[in-house]
Amino acid sequence: MKIGILTIGNELISGRTQDTNSSLMARVFSTQGWPVSLMMSVGDDDRLIKQALGYILAQSNAVVVTGGLGPTADDITAAAIARAFGLELYRDEAVLRHIRGIFEKYRLNWTDNNAKQADFPEGAEVIPNPVGTAAGFALKQKGKVIAVIPGVPREVERMLPEGVLPILRREFPEVAQHVAVRTIKTFGLSEAAVDQTLADLDPARLGISIGFYPNFPENHIVLTARGVVETEVASRVGAAAEGVISRLKKHIFAYDGETLEGLVAKYLTEKGWTLAVAESCTGGLVTDRLTDIPGSSAFLERSVVTYSNAAKVDLLGVPADMLEAYGAVSEPTARRMAEGIRKLAGTDLGLAITGIAGPAGRTEQKPVGTVYIALADGKQTLCRCHAFRWDRRRNKVISSQAALLMLKKYLTGEQEDG
Amino acid sequence: MKIGILTIGNELISGRTQDTNSSLMARVFSTQGWPVSLMMSVGDDDRLIKQALGYILAQSNAVVVTGGLGPTADDITAAAIARAFGLELYRDEAVLRHIRGIFEKYRLNWTDNNAKQADFPEGAEVIPNPVGTAAGFALKQKGKVIAVIPGVPREVERMLPEGVLPILRREFPEVAQHVAVRTIKTFGLSEAAVDQTLADLDPARLGISIGFYPNFPENHIVLTARGVVETEVASRVGAAAEGVISRLKKHIFAYDGETLEGLVAKYLTEKGWTLAVAESCTGGLVTDRLTDIPGSSAFLERSVVTYSNAAKVDLLGVPADMLEAYGAVSEPTARRMAEGIRKLAGTDLGLAITGIAGPAGRTEQKPVGTVYIALADGKQTLCRCHAFRWDRRRNKVISSQAALLMLKKYLTGEQEDG
Repeated sequence: MKIGILTIGNELISGRTQDTNSSLMARVFSTQGWPVSLMMSVGDDDRLIKQALGYILAQSNAVVVTGGLGPTADDITAAAIARAFGLELYRDEAVLRHIRGIFEKYRLNWTDNNAKQADFPEGAEVIPNPVGTAAGFALKQKGKVIAVIPGVPREVERMLPEGVLPILRREFPEVAQHVAVRTIKTFGLSEAAVDQTLADLDPARLGISIGFYPNFPENHIVLTARGVVETEVASRVGAAAEGVISRLKKHIFAYDGETLEGLVAKYLTEKGWTLAVAESCTGGLVTDRLTDIPGSSAFLERSVVTYSNAAKVDLLGVPADMLEAYGAVSEPTARRMAEGIRKLAGTDLGLAITGIAGPAGRTEQKPVGTVYIALADGKQTLCRCHAFRWDRRRNKVISSQAALLMLKKYLTGEQEDG
Repeated sequence: MKIGILTIGNELISGRTQDTNSSLMARVFSTQGWPVSLMMSVGDDDRLIKQALGYILAQSNAVVVTGGLGPTADDITAAAIARAFGLELYRDEAVLRHIRGIFEKYRLNWTDNNAKQADFPEGAEVIPNPVGTAAGFALKQKGKVIAVIPGVPREVERMLPEGVLPILRREFPEVAQHVAVRTIKTFGLSEAAVDQTLADLDPARLGISIGFYPNFPENHIVLTARGVVETEVASRVGAAAEGVISRLKKHIFAYDGETLEGLVAKYLTEKGWTLAVAESCTGGLVTDRLTDIPGSSAFLERSVVTYSNAAKVDLLGVPADMLEAYGAVSEPTARRMAEGIRKLAGTDLGLAITGIAGPAGRTEQKPVGTVYIALADGKQTLCRCHAFRWDRRRNKVISSQAALLMLKKYLTGEQEDG
């Protein structure tokens, strides 16, 4: 069972609109265990739509089409598909009444081109639209299914699960497979190094497929298993995940839908501990990430972005002569920043980041990307030095990642290496 | 001259990654006046790649391919394309040295699979990658051009204009027109409202094409003119831009490559003024945006994220009884936050944001999205109240935009309305 995706619209091939429907539909089909053969976008063009349908159906059992079902002159999808299969159009009176009803309810001016939205190829099954005027339809031709819905993303979000999936399940009952997916999120290894580390794993023997997805500064490994018995599929992907976890252990920080900031927020909230953050080179990004988590006000007492030395003295109590002697980007300064913010905020923990994001600011001993991160809990202060090598924005991003990871490891009692 | 687009990757057809490259490339080609015939995505599959190339080239003069050029086992694009045209692969020693150089410079561990990124079909022209390890390449076969670049969006953003466009212009000189583009960036109007406001402009009469590109929370209007005489094309787009500017004036904050934070940084630097920021609901995002600009340490003295009332009292001098009487999200509190941060930091300006990002935190009088923004200069304190209506992240983003815009208008002496 392979499904092809065809999105139709001049706005797509001109780059005016980002096509988000293809990706959404591909995700939904993958979750069902139905691989997508290909995705294609063409303009509102009769000949190209016919040609595309032929190409896609030659390598797929079904095609799901979005777009071109509206009332305007360039909405030609229903007519083009009818012609592609040598079918006439018919006007569905029930659908027409429904559309007229919407116009009356919202006191919209009726124009006759709206009736076009009630025209379908003969033999089509109507797919109702619960959130708009244009209905969809499904056709069966030579054992293949053609399902067509409007291209408005919020209509696709409803009509795909409520209208299209039930038809595909009914027409292809033999492919009601179960699918299990496990995502393993790593930090600190390049994509090539992840691949190399897992080279001795044999996906075919394990009965899974494996994918690598870089998502700077993270690398995600996705394991997928499919089959008829739900528990067997789950245990197959579970066994494969164990193999990956044992090989990448110290680089793994999260699984599936978890995020680093989400985990830090969760552990802090569970422990009832409070946090204050002193940022320099990350410029507020660590705090921005933490405050994306609803409820972060429960643990985040305050943060300061101390770009100037005066702010480091005033807000963190870093001695001016320490800044003079070691520099703002140094281990002693990072430690005092963490201790200072903790003490002044009266929190359980203090986290501090100071470094050189670039492009300017490097010294002879300290190249761009030199970053010190310190974590104080009142008994001890941990400090790590990093040497990153990216541009300004990515040095900020990777520094925020390293800081949140240090905090996460502290909260879970994992060993920091080095 | 028609161009086809082929994006390759299992992550695309599984819906795990949203393909943004197709849309970006379609926009760039449309800008050049070269229509896109179709866009297709297939998985990392030798047979499907070959088939897709055949289909696309049958209806296009050129195809631009992204993805599958990395070092891992599933990166098979170069080999698949070589096989599709019956070509051998060769290893380019200059490219190999370049890749090894990157590994040495950044002290990365070399693994042999990286050498694969120096393999190209025979007869290929290498397209350098200025921002990554994987180079691209171009082939000419039967009068058609096949250009291949990596799928990392920021590499596409560089390699498309710098590498691919010059090759297409050279190979198809008859369609190499002059193109003038003017981007006008607005904030505070919906896409529909922008469209309505410009309804009386006649692009055909002005000899331009006009595109609307929502980029939350901004709306960008892009004017494009094409023709043979460079100066005429420039003056045509300039005249059309004047028409747009006169209609949207008060909603325009930037042009072309300018960003809001970049303009704020520029004006502060030019004036030699210093800034301190007190953030509550934006959680550090205003400061994160400002510190993305190189040289921001020249004006940004400090920022504080005062999530707790205690921090608002300690770090900003907001009286506890004011917080009690009016609440943390109120005009008096916003004003005192701005005045407090300015005074304590000793800066020329103090900017403060306090609001309810959601999903929790609303009160009877103050729904989610209520945000107060204040700006103090020692003589006066401006304050504006906003009612946004988005989710947590987008409320943070739009609040940061409103705060930076208020600051920008102050710096340029523009009138704040309302």
